[in-house]
Amino acid sequence: MAFKEPYELSVKEASELIRKQELSPVDLVRSCIERIEALEERIKAWALVDREGALQAASLCEAEIKERSWRGPLHGIPIGIKDIFYTAGLRTEAGSGTLAGFVPSCDASAVERLKEAGAIILGKTQTTQFACLDPAATRNPWNLDHTPGGSSSGSAAAVAACMCPVALGSQTAGSTLRPAAYNGIVGAKGEHGRVSTYGVVPLSWRLDHVGILARTVEDAAITLQAIAGYDPKDLHSLNAPVPDFLASLKVSKSPRLGLVRGYFFDHADEEMRRHTEEVAERLRGAGASVTEAVLPPDFVNASDINGVSMKAEAAAYHEDVFAEKKDLYRSNIRQLIEDGLAGPVTTYVRALEERLAQRAKLTPLLLNWDALVTPGATGAAPEGLESTGNPAMQRPWTTIGVPTIALPTGLNRKGLPLGIQLVGGPFAEDRLFAVAWWCEKALGVHLNPPL
Amino acid sequence: MAFKEPYELSVKEASELIRKQELSPVDLVRSCIERIEALEERIKAWALVDREGALQAASLCEAEIKERSWRGPLHGIPIGIKDIFYTAGLRTEAGSGTLAGFVPSCDASAVERLKEAGAIILGKTQTTQFACLDPAATRNPWNLDHTPGGSSSGSAAAVAACMCPVALGSQTAGSTLRPAAYNGIVGAKGEHGRVSTYGVVPLSWRLDHVGILARTVEDAAITLQAIAGYDPKDLHSLNAPVPDFLASLKVSKSPRLGLVRGYFFDHADEEMRRHTEEVAERLRGAGASVTEAVLPPDFVNASDINGVSMKAEAAAYHEDVFAEKKDLYRSNIRQLIEDGLAGPVTTYVRALEERLAQRAKLTPLLLNWDALVTPGATGAAPEGLESTGNPAMQRPWTTIGVPTIALPTGLNRKGLPLGIQLVGGPFAEDRLFAVAWWCEKALGVHLNPPL
Repeated sequence: MAFKEPYELSVKEASELIRKQELSPVDLVRSCIERIEALEERIKAWALVDREGALQAASLCEAEIKERSWRGPLHGIPIGIKDIFYTAGLRTEAGSGTLAGFVPSCDASAVERLKEAGAIILGKTQTTQFACLDPAATRNPWNLDHTPGGSSSGSAAAVAACMCPVALGSQTAGSTLRPAAYNGIVGAKGEHGRVSTYGVVPLSWRLDHVGILARTVEDAAITLQAIAGYDPKDLHSLNAPVPDFLASLKVSKSPRLGLVRGYFFDHADEEMRRHTEEVAERLRGAGASVTEAVLPPDFVNASDINGVSMKAEAAAYHEDVFAEKKDLYRSNIRQLIEDGLAGPVTTYVRALEERLAQRAKLTPLLLNWDALVTPGATGAAPEGLESTGNPAMQRPWTTIGVPTIALPTGLNRKGLPLGIQLVGGPFAEDRLFAVAWWCEKALGVHLNPPL
Repeated sequence: MAFKEPYELSVKEASELIRKQELSPVDLVRSCIERIEALEERIKAWALVDREGALQAASLCEAEIKERSWRGPLHGIPIGIKDIFYTAGLRTEAGSGTLAGFVPSCDASAVERLKEAGAIILGKTQTTQFACLDPAATRNPWNLDHTPGGSSSGSAAAVAACMCPVALGSQTAGSTLRPAAYNGIVGAKGEHGRVSTYGVVPLSWRLDHVGILARTVEDAAITLQAIAGYDPKDLHSLNAPVPDFLASLKVSKSPRLGLVRGYFFDHADEEMRRHTEEVAERLRGAGASVTEAVLPPDFVNASDINGVSMKAEAAAYHEDVFAEKKDLYRSNIRQLIEDGLAGPVTTYVRALEERLAQRAKLTPLLLNWDALVTPGATGAAPEGLESTGNPAMQRPWTTIGVPTIALPTGLNRKGLPLGIQLVGGPFAEDRLFAVAWWCEKALGVHLNPPL
């Protein structure tokens, strides 16, 4: 532990040192800022780094600790925030010219909860424009010529490059778990509505999830625990008890896993299919039961619905501004809005019904195993920065709103990360975290880009 | 009691006699059939009366009773079913030529639950075409030249005319409580999703409620209790515990009522406004606290959203058949579908969001009183059979999905029924039933049309 630089520490490790006053939050923030300064020119993960604000917050955290007032495991931990979350007093532009220079007067609820938990807002991370598919400037820390994925591009790259131990992202199709897979880190999203999206620039109200990018399963659980819970300000917030994600990590039982081929193997490349089979074999070797989970024949609908819903809802949100400032919209989000405006309402209405039907149909399948296993992405991060890759692995699960976790599981021959996706049953993030934690230990894979 | 004809009995009264074997279900059914035969030519409440099936079911009920097997308070009670509910082996046409001669092979879930509770399906009641605004042939038992309201026209008229003690209806705008008000009977709907709509021909999935028409509050509670509860076959079914509506009737406490003028008085005629004030005065006199409840200024949205949602969802359901058989659609439902097909998707998406916002905004208001009080309809049943009247009193509450009960409170100078509407908080049907029961007793009004 002593040989690690502060920026290399996990949330868990840093937190224990901070609590024992063996690490000052100020030194931790300073270490992260130095790391950013060393690498940012190459990685371009940040839209804004709030050096002054973060150091000031760190001083306050330090003072509190000295007064034996410890807020919990995020006390003094610097966090990156995707630039679609409102941050009071900090520019929030969502990668869009239409929001150039916009400084919100309040925090998104998730940001507010992080601050209450003692976390330090290190800055805003790069996002594709309005969390759609138009790439940010960010590069993949594993190979600067490859995409980091998106839309939570900066959050994923920053965490992978150890610029901060954890960051907030969002997921409407595959925007948290896909970049997590491309960057060799953990990505997690809870049940739809588990984390408030109040103060997050919406892409699609009924699909938007707050996501977490971290380097360990435990760090993701710590962060989700801090921000989960009902928020009356979010119309889609889940008014239900929050499971104890951290307690679930203490239960270490060999999981029953359902390996899903079908749709997922059809959309994955040969390398990813082979890798997923190998990971399943390694998990079996470690004691897990891994059996085949067979999808219903119309499963593909769950993916198609995602597009229909996103188009209609993005169009509804952007319609007025789009009519005036169309030129400021980049090609993918523009096309999405135009498709949405042109789309017949009946297609959207039927998609809403079909989404409920898919969720009802897939629930028994999900409850049959502790978690389902799919490839983490269609392949390793694609070369080039023009595309953020394919969200096919995440789409169906985002559509039906169940919790998912991306886990890094190895490198390909070109030295790029590969990973799996674990899928949990409705409202059962605790069970899913327990499985992910078990798999993480069983596989023993932690990836660090050669920077 | 002994002087009443069986058809005049309430569910509660008939049920006690049946249980004690002082009334045979066969005699009860026969009495209702005779009543129908005497009046149906004038009232036209029925699409189909299943004489043979009902008498057969009544014999079975009688046999069960003789074996001391009593299923509960609906055992042996004949019930009318609006002709949009699937009934196994019984023609179900929803007032539409497109369904002419259609005989379902299964029951709607609500019908199935009624049968399990021992109820007897007496027949199918007239509905406006597809539960929209095109009138059925039904006439108001209080004055044959006046509309009975709709869309649950036959159910309301049949119950008012004592052809059956209780009937199922549905409500998407004002289709249960408005005809209840026009016919001088009790109308009730629970929280959205409380009663399964599986097997009910949809008008608008996100607005459709199963409704109950009865002659007393207790009868409505008995019926709702039998059919309420989660149904995995209905995608919009509420997966939540069902309150004990009947137990709530035993709690007799003077209620705190919120009289709502604003939007409701703006849409009611002078007579109805005056009557509502008088009823409030009578309730105050009986010991209730009645204070003014002030609506938020954008309350009218909750009504507008109803139309936007209904159009889009009706269009989505009918689109394919409509393209082929447009001529079989009557003018109002045709216009609704055409508006829906033409409407921009973004208006619908925003209406869905606004509906959630309105519910969130109105919940604190609803929780401030035991129930809100509004006029039961914009006025007494209008003259003429071309229109089914104005659903303005019900629309906002149907939109936000909270429970409501219509209570008859008197007659106007022309001898037509007037009534009030009581509105309960989210999921709180038990509290609402307790209030309605108290008001029913306090007012002492039971109306019988001069037939």
